[in-house]
Amino acid sequence: MAKIAVVAGDGIGTEVVAQALKVLRVVLPGVETTDYDLGAARYNRTGEVLPDSVLEELRGHDAILLGAVGDPSVPPGVLERGLLLKLRFDFDQYVNLRPSRLWPGTTSPLAGVKPGEIDLVVVREGTEGLYVGAGGNLHPGTAAEVATEESLNTRHGVERVIRDAFGRAAKRPRRKVTLVHKTNVLTHAGGLWARTFNAVKAEFPDIETEYQHVDAAAMFLVSNPQRYDVVVTDNLFGDILTDIAAAVTGGIGLAASGSINPERAHPSMFEPVHGSAPDIAGKGVADPSAAVLSTALLLDHLGHPEAAAKVTEAVGNEVAARTPGSAISTEAIGDRLATAVA
Amino acid sequence: MAKIAVVAGDGIGTEVVAQALKVLRVVLPGVETTDYDLGAARYNRTGEVLPDSVLEELRGHDAILLGAVGDPSVPPGVLERGLLLKLRFDFDQYVNLRPSRLWPGTTSPLAGVKPGEIDLVVVREGTEGLYVGAGGNLHPGTAAEVATEESLNTRHGVERVIRDAFGRAAKRPRRKVTLVHKTNVLTHAGGLWARTFNAVKAEFPDIETEYQHVDAAAMFLVSNPQRYDVVVTDNLFGDILTDIAAAVTGGIGLAASGSINPERAHPSMFEPVHGSAPDIAGKGVADPSAAVLSTALLLDHLGHPEAAAKVTEAVGNEVAARTPGSAISTEAIGDRLATAVA
Ligand SMILES: CC(C)[C@H](C(=O)O)[C@@H](O)C(=O)O
Ligand SMILES: CC(C)[C@H](C(=O)O)[C@@H](O)C(=O)O
Repeated sequence: MAKIAVVAGDGIGTEVVAQALKVLRVVLPGVETTDYDLGAARYNRTGEVLPDSVLEELRGHDAILLGAVGDPSVPPGVLERGLLLKLRFDFDQYVNLRPSRLWPGTTSPLAGVKPGEIDLVVVREGTEGLYVGAGGNLHPGTAAEVATEESLNTRHGVERVIRDAFGRAAKRPRRKVTLVHKTNVLTHAGGLWARTFNAVKAEFPDIETEYQHVDAAAMFLVSNPQRYDVVVTDNLFGDILTDIAAAVTGGIGLAASGSINPERAHPSMFEPVHGSAPDIAGKGVADPSAAVLSTALLLDHLGHPEAAAKVTEAVGNEVAARTPGSAISTEAIGDRLATAVA
Repeated sequence: MAKIAVVAGDGIGTEVVAQALKVLRVVLPGVETTDYDLGAARYNRTGEVLPDSVLEELRGHDAILLGAVGDPSVPPGVLERGLLLKLRFDFDQYVNLRPSRLWPGTTSPLAGVKPGEIDLVVVREGTEGLYVGAGGNLHPGTAAEVATEESLNTRHGVERVIRDAFGRAAKRPRRKVTLVHKTNVLTHAGGLWARTFNAVKAEFPDIETEYQHVDAAAMFLVSNPQRYDVVVTDNLFGDILTDIAAAVTGGIGLAASGSINPERAHPSMFEPVHGSAPDIAGKGVADPSAAVLSTALLLDHLGHPEAAAKVTEAVGNEVAARTPGSAISTEAIGDRLATAVA
């Protein structure tokens, strides 16, 4: 039976994960879960971010379900670099998967875009690029300070994520992959990405392809998001583009993500894109849909595509059935979804 | 009298610049202009991108008006690195200024956002960051390839552009500056930007400030662009965010930009954000408004704020007076604007 490590985290993280687990237990009876206390609360209490012993325990699981970590009291970078990125890197989660759909019952901020018209998935590289943390500060705090950040990209890392994107496109009806980079300015990394893309594309002759600069893609995600099917891009561009994709599909309330090691050599991690939202924490008003959709990605990854589809469909139906303007509690949504998948 | 170097460039660049010059000659009679043949056409004909002698001639001008350069026949990076970025760097154009307004008569793709509600300006750093071109390719073309891109940031470069942003905000009614970076991941460069921002902000106690991560800013530019007044950010983030800002204000048809050396120690360069658009070139249908608005930025920079305001107002009125759905030629728009400013 699947062993899931649960990092509920901070703020609304705990609230939405409770609902996600409720749904998970219905579709995967007997699933073993273990809670791990990580995040801002633990850091503030103990100074610990991710003890080595915990990292090793997490390694023994099939997947990690994460709510959200973070709090304004923690300096920027501590939990991001020490926990989230550490897990992505140590567990070689090189496919950062972020689907965006405009669900029936939701409204895009874009005029005239109707539910069903946006259905894209961003395959964001998760272990390289500017996220590696290479760089430093020379003469810090003086007028002579120089700060550097280095983007590292390998053929190995670029090729495997591009191949993953083509594999996903091959299973989708539209069969199209868009590479996004900035080859006209970042000529070194861009050259590697473009050459690798062209090499892999030769293996998938029936997949349509296109290339766009990141600035153009950012614009098209607003003016014509319908054009995208699978988008493959680097770590930082993927971070930005997926938030635009979330915005045009109605915000991060429904944005799910998986940090995936496709070979399952290490645990993959699934989490809503939203943060811990301290402003609404404890009120029972957070929408657990993104956490539940992340659980669907988890199910799919662990080899339960039918359970995944059922959960996804339940979320879609629940969202479509909501009465506009009336608030539903976190728990009530979780109950509805658990009933729907039963 | 002001001496302007004109680089009309390729595709629609020549068409829109002709109209911009028509307007410029009316508001600044006697302005001296010199044409420079640079861009894809020249590169394809002669292999030259920017001969040193031309660079030196450009240096003798007060400003450069550029249409657009580029063509699919030129490999990515050649004109960008060799011409556009070379000018930005050699002429120390450290303020890349990009205003975005939702003009009366235009429609945002965002539902419910009304003309006048979006009025922001992005002050994008123009001489540092990932645009410096530092990096390389090790073992290129092999399975062992590593490609790097290095972002270089100096206190000098960061401080001057942040101070410029505060200076601009002080002259605007809302008096607000938003710093955008990614301090939680790019901790080295982000630290420098955040510390410098806090230092400069202490000099402007009556300016409101906020900080946002780039992914959050990309989302808010879609969900709530009204919140922004002046946004200051690094070179690459500015590239992406200004295209989102252009998209939500109706596309790049009205997006103007200036690559500015505020001290006027070197010529500044003004250009529409749109490209050479080979698909519509030669048809006389390109909208010259962005080029004309760029000319207004040029006028302002050269110490003619009233002429600048007049040109900007004329564009606003012309756009507002257009009959929805009916096409106007490039030349007709130029004529209308020239008449309006007379
Ligand atoms: C919290 C942060 C490290 C993270 C990222 O930049 O990847 C977040 O923005 C995300 O998109 O998952
Ligand atoms: C053409 C390219 C070099 C340029 C940039 O990236 O700065 C363009 O996208 C812009 O925004 O002016």
